[in-house]
Amino acid sequence: MRTLKLTVAYDGTDFAGWQLQPGRRTVQGVVEHALAPITGQSRTLASGRTDAGVHALAQVVRVRTESIYPPETIVKALNARLPSDVAALCCQEVSDRFHPIRDAVGKTYRYVLHDGPLRDVFHRRTSWKLWEAIDERAMRHAARVLCGRHDFRSFQTSGSQRKTTVRNVRRLEVTRGFKNCPHLIAVEIEADGFLYNMARAIVGALVEIGRGKRDSDWLAAALAATNRAAAARTAPPEGLFLVKVDYGAANLGGENAK
Amino acid sequence: MRTLKLTVAYDGTDFAGWQLQPGRRTVQGVVEHALAPITGQSRTLASGRTDAGVHALAQVVRVRTESIYPPETIVKALNARLPSDVAALCCQEVSDRFHPIRDAVGKTYRYVLHDGPLRDVFHRRTSWKLWEAIDERAMRHAARVLCGRHDFRSFQTSGSQRKTTVRNVRRLEVTRGFKNCPHLIAVEIEADGFLYNMARAIVGALVEIGRGKRDSDWLAAALAATNRAAAARTAPPEGLFLVKVDYGAANLGGENAK
Repeated sequence: MRTLKLTVAYDGTDFAGWQLQPGRRTVQGVVEHALAPITGQSRTLASGRTDAGVHALAQVVRVRTESIYPPETIVKALNARLPSDVAALCCQEVSDRFHPIRDAVGKTYRYVLHDGPLRDVFHRRTSWKLWEAIDERAMRHAARVLCGRHDFRSFQTSGSQRKTTVRNVRRLEVTRGFKNCPHLIAVEIEADGFLYNMARAIVGALVEIGRGKRDSDWLAAALAATNRAAAARTAPPEGLFLVKVDYGAANLGGENAK
Repeated sequence: MRTLKLTVAYDGTDFAGWQLQPGRRTVQGVVEHALAPITGQSRTLASGRTDAGVHALAQVVRVRTESIYPPETIVKALNARLPSDVAALCCQEVSDRFHPIRDAVGKTYRYVLHDGPLRDVFHRRTSWKLWEAIDERAMRHAARVLCGRHDFRSFQTSGSQRKTTVRNVRRLEVTRGFKNCPHLIAVEIEADGFLYNMARAIVGALVEIGRGKRDSDWLAAALAATNRAAAARTAPPEGLFLVKVDYGAANLGGENAK
């Protein structure tokens, strides 16, 4: 039995999220269906579930297989079978101790906002359309409040069962002019881990500040409250991208790892 | 009866082109359906038909109506009724002599190529995926051959009935790094007018050069041949955008023109 670390990208628009659900089109369902004739029936495990409508530039998926195909052959065969909104990017053989959730030492999410005055048909699937001009400098200033190690309970959708709600936000950048478009604002968040809906909850709060309705002091108080009701609403899924899952310098190496 | 100059954008992916076709989803059909309760039944006339899969950043459409709504109200009402892949951008009242095809003095098309080594799920609807590295400098160099006034019969799909096949290409720019993405190449073509499929035929030929299979001399000979068979195949529709229709300084002005 070999263990493979497979990296996939997907446009989440037409999916009911990553996780298998009977009768729904899910990324996991589509990936497992494409894998079946290549690696044999294989249950996959992803670095985390993305919600309906959320995208991934590089989701990491563990695959266990008896297949002897080289990893690059698996990538090619997978791409021939996957629909146009999912792509296999790379594959490597790793130690059978590799665990895509537990071994992750960091993750990066990007959230894209669009604040142009007109509807934009080309970014509708991949950004949150805001109908007022956003002050991204105010957002950038306030974002400093969230950087570092904090209890992010105020930015977690209730119902999840994590041992601790303390996370370390290593980087939180707000940039206008994403993709050379003056109306696109990218919020990039890197942390050692994310609570459920944490990236979207942070963006929801920052957008209140960008709209001029709240300020940094409110954000600091919301964080200190450790209560979801203290922060703003969760940003919608279509603007969110899982950009990277970081496994650090850990030796993932299997025999053919590269 | 008022005459309106309406500007719309659309993601052409899920349309069978601009022109009405029974039983097919067309942009004209969707726009006329959205217009009906606002301006009354109205047959629209566009600056040109775009083919299935071709996009528009600013298609110009003439609308004739008895409606007394101000143009900005029509834009808002239209956007409330249009599906997410079509947007009304602006509307102005113009002279009833305005003709969106005959009065156009220039058009700009953009064609987007993607030559990254991996499948890109986010640009699949809006670029031509090429599986080899493209030499955009060779394309840019060769593009000079096409600039200026020439008989572009070699770059016209047969079957169209234009009086003359002479057109003036005012600008033809090839740029890598479109949208800040190193794998996206934009080809922008501005001309006094375009023959049927001319933009896609030009891009098809330039891509042969970018692949290293042809050179500037071949392009010059293909142009001189005034024969479609002398040039390369037509580029697929998904990379093409109608960027702008230019009506020059002509006075379009109706009573409420702005």
